[in-house]
Amino acid sequence: MYQQEPPSQRTTIKRIPQRGNYERDTIYEILDEGLICYVGFVVDGQPFVIPTAYGRVDDTLYIHGSPASRMLRSLQQGIDICVTVTLLDGLVLARSAFHHSMNYRSVVVFGTATLVQDAEQKLVALRAFTEHVIPGRWQEVRSPSRSELAGTLVLSLPLVEASAKVRTGGPNDDAADYDLLVWAGEIPLQLTATTPIADSRLLSQIEPTYVSHYKRRRD
Amino acid sequence: MYQQEPPSQRTTIKRIPQRGNYERDTIYEILDEGLICYVGFVVDGQPFVIPTAYGRVDDTLYIHGSPASRMLRSLQQGIDICVTVTLLDGLVLARSAFHHSMNYRSVVVFGTATLVQDAEQKLVALRAFTEHVIPGRWQEVRSPSRSELAGTLVLSLPLVEASAKVRTGGPNDDAADYDLLVWAGEIPLQLTATTPIADSRLLSQIEPTYVSHYKRRRD
Repeated sequence: MYQQEPPSQRTTIKRIPQRGNYERDTIYEILDEGLICYVGFVVDGQPFVIPTAYGRVDDTLYIHGSPASRMLRSLQQGIDICVTVTLLDGLVLARSAFHHSMNYRSVVVFGTATLVQDAEQKLVALRAFTEHVIPGRWQEVRSPSRSELAGTLVLSLPLVEASAKVRTGGPNDDAADYDLLVWAGEIPLQLTATTPIADSRLLSQIEPTYVSHYKRRRD
Repeated sequence: MYQQEPPSQRTTIKRIPQRGNYERDTIYEILDEGLICYVGFVVDGQPFVIPTAYGRVDDTLYIHGSPASRMLRSLQQGIDICVTVTLLDGLVLARSAFHHSMNYRSVVVFGTATLVQDAEQKLVALRAFTEHVIPGRWQEVRSPSRSELAGTLVLSLPLVEASAKVRTGGPNDDAADYDLLVWAGEIPLQLTATTPIADSRLLSQIEPTYVSHYKRRRD
């Protein structure tokens, strides 16, 4: 991430092991905690990386394609994409500049994404987008109309080729550097919700718990 | 991001205006606040998106290429990349599922990245990586040795073609939906530092202010 590392497994296209579900669990936990994914794709040889919303349903990742709709809407055959989600857990301060690092949990998914055309499947995806961000929210809000459904571009990506990479813990300094007086350790980071801002035209001032106590990380 | 949007300027390759530096200021502020960038590139037609550290020096973005070193080290001619940085500022809860959104500040940079070969320029880049995360840290830690310098892969990207996209504020609901009783508004999010974890082999327990009061956002 931040310091030099050996060639990264992250950049290897890797099939999720069918047995030993430990890795699949890790990958899904990271995907389920993240809020934004970065979708990489190629148009005329030019790479694009677009941040967007997503949701997981079992072994399928649904991606909100609207931010790139101009480029994606014409697709009929599917498109090779790379999706990356990273949770930044902390800064790692070492005694040398070189060994500074970051703690993170990261997932890279490779595969061919296809446009979701079927209205029913699209509804499943839209539900996943909402529930991914705020579990329980879907049943409280107005459901998408037919035209809203039609106007939302959704990509579907099978979670088959993916890998997770995780760094935890403090710095790994060179032996001689432990004699230096400089502070070393970890500054943990987390994405936290601050005071909610109610819409000015709200009819009821009752604040749901998922608003007043929004928390991303499942403990 | 999360709701349907008109075709995004984000996906347009755009030259930063030379005059009217408002946009350049916005782009640089976002780049300077972010901690991780997502680098998209193409190898044999396959898109890759790698999260990594970076730092800005004037109109140059230096990218820590080590996480993708296996793929990048052989480059001599430069490589077309797309770099995306997103700051997630909040969740926007609307009265309909469709109008849910996120508040964010995002930058997309396009260009040809080149390997930094010159040792002096590489030192400038490594300094930028450290100072980007913790201003003032560079002068306190052990500087990179010659072999550490040689072992760090750094890409240089000119900040010429870039654009920023920002969403702020509450939900924009359909007129009829304002009669619904569901809560609507914004849940602001911010990346916050929690209690630092000192390395167990620390010689001095003095905690620098940049550790005890680490704050990402410049106020």
